[in-house]
Formats: sequence, C-alpha cells, structure tokens
Amino acid sequence: MIHDIEVLKAKTSKISEIDFNNLKFGHVFSDHMLECDFKNGEWEAPKVVPYQPITLDPSAKIFHYGQSVFEGMKAYKDADGKVWLFRPLDNFKRLNISSKRLAIPELPENYFMDGLKALLKVDEDWIPEKEGSSLYIRPFVFASGNGFHASPADEYKFIICTAPSGAYFSGEVKVLIEEKYSRSANGGVGFAKAGGNYAGQFYPTQLAVEKGYQQVIWTDDTSHEYIEEAGAMNIFVRIDDTLVTAPTSDRILDGITRKSIIELAKSENIPVEVRKLSVKEVVEAAQNGSLKEMFGAGTAAVISPISGFGYKDNDYELPKLTDDSYASFLKKRITDIQTNKVEDPFGWRMEVK
Amino acid sequence: MIHDIEVLKAKTSKISEIDFNNLKFGHVFSDHMLECDFKNGEWEAPKVVPYQPITLDPSAKIFHYGQSVFEGMKAYKDADGKVWLFRPLDNFKRLNISSKRLAIPELPENYFMDGLKALLKVDEDWIPEKEGSSLYIRPFVFASGNGFHASPADEYKFIICTAPSGAYFSGEVKVLIEEKYSRSANGGVGFAKAGGNYAGQFYPTQLAVEKGYQQVIWTDDTSHEYIEEAGAMNIFVRIDDTLVTAPTSDRILDGITRKSIIELAKSENIPVEVRKLSVKEVVEAAQNGSLKEMFGAGTAAVISPISGFGYKDNDYELPKLTDDSYASFLKKRITDIQTNKVEDPFGWRMEVK
Repeated sequence: MIHDIEVLKAKTSKISEIDFNNLKFGHVFSDHMLECDFKNGEWEAPKVVPYQPITLDPSAKIFHYGQSVFEGMKAYKDADGKVWLFRPLDNFKRLNISSKRLAIPELPENYFMDGLKALLKVDEDWIPEKEGSSLYIRPFVFASGNGFHASPADEYKFIICTAPSGAYFSGEVKVLIEEKYSRSANGGVGFAKAGGNYAGQFYPTQLAVEKGYQQVIWTDDTSHEYIEEAGAMNIFVRIDDTLVTAPTSDRILDGITRKSIIELAKSENIPVEVRKLSVKEVVEAAQNGSLKEMFGAGTAAVISPISGFGYKDNDYELPKLTDDSYASFLKKRITDIQTNKVEDPFGWRMEVK
Repeated sequence: MIHDIEVLKAKTSKISEIDFNNLKFGHVFSDHMLECDFKNGEWEAPKVVPYQPITLDPSAKIFHYGQSVFEGMKAYKDADGKVWLFRPLDNFKRLNISSKRLAIPELPENYFMDGLKALLKVDEDWIPEKEGSSLYIRPFVFASGNGFHASPADEYKFIICTAPSGAYFSGEVKVLIEEKYSRSANGGVGFAKAGGNYAGQFYPTQLAVEKGYQQVIWTDDTSHEYIEEAGAMNIFVRIDDTLVTAPTSDRILDGITRKSIIELAKSENIPVEVRKLSVKEVVEAAQNGSLKEMFGAGTAAVISPISGFGYKDNDYELPKLTDDSYASFLKKRITDIQTNKVEDPFGWRMEVK
C-alpha cells in the first residue's frame, strides 16, 4: 500500500514528444520526480513534484566536498501492463550503506519505497512496454547544505528521477586490464555507490579508449595483480565450465546483478567460485584456451559480454559467444524473471500496485 | 593588467550586514562571484556577476558522478590597503592538474587569473583589514552537463566565490592515527583536490571525534604503517631539530603551504627531510622524547599544531608549544610574507592592482 505521499502534478506532459521506439539510455526524463529534504536533523516527508531544476547556493557542499551517493534500478511493464521492480529493497539498503560511509543521513525505508511507488504510479505511462526497454530509475542523495568548512553538510536532498530507456547495447567490448590507475583503496569508499568513485574512472577510461579499448578492468591498488571490477560493473570470468568472480570487499561494489547471477547460476548447477581472481590466471586461461567467457554485470546492461582484453601490450581474444554461453543464458533468465515472463523462485520481483 | 572581464554589478551590497570583527570561516559570502561556462567544447569568457544561486537539471552529472575539483586561496590587505595573493599561479596549475585527473577540461590561465583579479577589484571592500583575517577564495569547477550515462559531462561551470574569514583557530587538536580507513589509493585521485576525497574522510573523522579526537592522521592504504596526511592538511613532524614530511605522490596533495614551509625552513637552516615517515618511528620518538612537534599545514589555518595523538589504544602527548617552536616561527614567517609585513625573498607574493 502506498500512503501519505503528496503529489503535485505537472500541468502538461512531455510524453507525446518522446519516441519510445528510439530510446537511448538516460537522456529523456519523465514528467515527475520524487523530492525529499533533510533539514533540522530529519528527513521531511517526500513529495512527488513535476520534474524541475534544482537551485543551490554556490557554497552548497555537493560542489566542493563530493557528498553524493546514488542507485540504479529499473521498472518493467509485463504483457498485462503490470509494473515490476527487481529486488528494490536491496537498492534501498545499499543506498543507506553508501550514505553512512559518506556521512550522509540514512533514509527511512518507507520514504524510499512508498515514494518510489507513488512516483511510478504517477508516471506509469512512461514505463516502456517494448521488449528490452524499461524505465531506468535513479535515486540519489547529495549535500545541499552550505558553507566552505570541510565537514558534512547539515542539509541534504534525496531525489528519484526516471528515464525511459531502450535496450542497453554496448556493442563489442574490448577491455584493458589496468596496471597503473586504481578505482579504490583498502579502507576507502569503493564499496559505496559514491559519485567520486565514478569521476576517478573517467580519465583512465579515456586513456584506454585512445588505445582502442572501451573499458578498463580495475585491479587492486596495491599490486595490480588481482581483478576487481569491469568499468562501472562487476566482472565474471568463465574458466572451463566454472564461473568466477571476485569477492566483495571495501573496494568492490556489492552489485545486485552480481549476486543475482551467483544465485541463479548455483540454482542451475553451474559451478560458481567467489574468490580472488589473479590477472595471471586469466592470462594463462586465455593462452591455454580454458577462458571461455568474460562479462560485466550491472543494472544498465544486465550482462555485458567482453570480446577480448589487453594486458601488458598483448591482446587476448575471447571465443565468439554461442547460444549456450553463460552470458546469453543468464541474461535471458534474469530478464525473464524481471519482466514476469517466467516463475520467480527467488522472490526477487516486486509488483507495484 | 586585468582586461576584458565583463562585470555585472549587484544592485545592492550586503556588506553593511557583516560584522567584520566576528567572522567565522566560510560562512558569509561577498557580493559577487566569477562565473565561466564550458559549452560546445570550449570555455566561454568569464564574467563577474552578483553572488547568486546555481540552477541545474536533476540529471546534472555533479549530482551523480562526482566530477568536481576546487582550490583554496586567500587575499590579504596590508596596512597601506594594498591587496596581495600568495602563490596564486600554483593554485591555478594545481586546479588544472586536478581537473585533468577527473576528466574535466583544463582552464586557460588568463581566465583564472584575470577573472580572479577582476572579482577582487569589484569586492575589494570585502577583504578584511583586521590582523589574522583575510578573504578566503574558493575557485571550483564541476560537471553541469546532463545525463545518466556514466561518462564525463559535456558542460562544466568554473566559479570563484569569496568569503571574508577570521583567523582560523582550531583550538587544541588531538589526532587519531588511522588503522582501518583510508583517504586514497595508489593510482587514485588523492593528489587531486577532488570533492570525493573529502566526502570519504567525514565518516572516519566522525568516528575519531566520538573517541575524543578532532582529526584523523591518514596512513597508506596498503599497510597503514606510513603517515600521509592530517585531516585535510599535509603533516609535518619535528624529531629533535629535524622537520620531516612525507613526499608527495599520487596519494598525497601537493600542498602550497607544505612546499612553502619546506622552502622557508631550508632558508632558515632548519634541517628538513622529505621522506616516508612510519608510524613506528613517530611512536618511538614520542616515547623517547625526541618528538618535539607535529602540525598540519594548509591554506585555511596555515599551520595547525597538534597537541597529541592516539594509536592502538594508547595516547601520546606532545610538549607544549614554546615561542621558539617551529610551528609558531614558521607560521609567523609565512603570514608576514603573505601580508606584506616583511620582505619576500621567494617571490611568492603577488599584488592585485
């Protein structure tokens, strides 16, 4: 049940201007957004309001001290027009885990969940029906309080925006295993979906792009010997028939797609190992032919297959994907569950009514 | 010479509302600010405009991906009413170094320097004359372009705001040497004045405050055996008569106060060692009495003496500061140079005319 969320409706809708057959990712935004302010030591009641600009003082701490966290989620419409979310409570919990590490006040669960549902109800027509499309949901929290003192802000804004998005097709992805730059520190904020983690990735990624790759595979900052993440996704490697991924840590994001893949693979009797994965092992597996697949896992693309990787001036190609590849199989299983095409034995799906 | 900076003057001034005898740090802002937009692949001409709110789309990348860098500087008014900056070109250069690492477009030098001078001219009356007070200057650049795609923005804003500020008195500072959390990674963005570096420090600092300390001494993220920074400042330790500070690296900020202290100390024949400084060495020096001083160095406080430190559940006190302490001596020398009270043999001072 959704209760007590005030709704201020937009006077006009932009929806007729949108070509739902040609949606990119995160470029057009729905008519409304959820807005919730933290002031005087507490979160005020969230409201659905027309999608609108945010006005801040130039001294607002978001501009200076990087207090910002976010989540990425999707809403799907099934053939009967029912609306579904995928493990939304896990996003809520992780948002608070991220917030805590950045000294941002945590949100009450009902503000997040009821607010999100109220927003989806108001903008239900914005949820695409087309196969592969979905409504991308972006909850975020940032420091809106003022002052140049380097300390946590006294005011914050929690906002949810949504963007109807087409199937995320990344094309052929070649990755570069990073030997110099790092994404996160031991004891740092790498496990949080903190804005600053992303800004730090852009420059090394640009350098990789200049060398002909599309993404960076992040390695540990101490030795660069262990594989941690792929771009802004978690990474999986298939060696022979075993799926391997790095354990989560304070450097690695506890991805919801990542843990869904692990559970799903196990339930399908696919051997899964969650353990440290060295670059050496991956290179050797590529050389001896036991490396069958590599893919990134995240909300936007679900699974993003990797076609090859570069390391120390050598390039390694992966076998072409086949119909029985884990990437194809697992992606179909997850998206079928997400979009209510099959049973959901895990209880991951949540209907929005 | 200041040329070609358009000035849009505020209709009224807030200056009569300000009590210049009771200024805190960074809480009141001058009448104007410098504003400069990056659009269509280039920086547009900077303008001085009335201090005013910033309006952004909710999808602006600053809210999501942490692309923000800043600088901290001060302007001083001497007894003759002349206005001085301290090593401003070093701030300009470091801003661009930070920007590059965060995939933010670099600024032309004249936009920064001429823009800053034009702003100081317009708000000259805001520069405090009182001993110890100064006009704190905050240049910053952030991603104002829109979209949820995790990639560098296509638009940015460079802004300079100023805040008349009183002497920064931090009181007695006890610090905790950090054994779990970290500020930066090898190959990360710790050397940049990036917003995200500060957000990550707040929570560990809150934990230290709960234990009775005011700040954290950051150690390397691999072993936590080496001392790197003090809160948001560089750190110096005096062992017997030698001043020791950690070398800059990709984890440590190349502080302008830090390097000024090194140059100044050398010119005064104070032995200075720039080398790795282990926690073990500092603890042993505290135990055997050779640890004479510890202090943080940064723009806001110039030098902030540390009265004691905690490590592994033990507390170590430092000797009381005397008139011939390095902290007092070096702080006076630097502020005398900054405020045009003494000769400046280093060429650090720049008059704004």
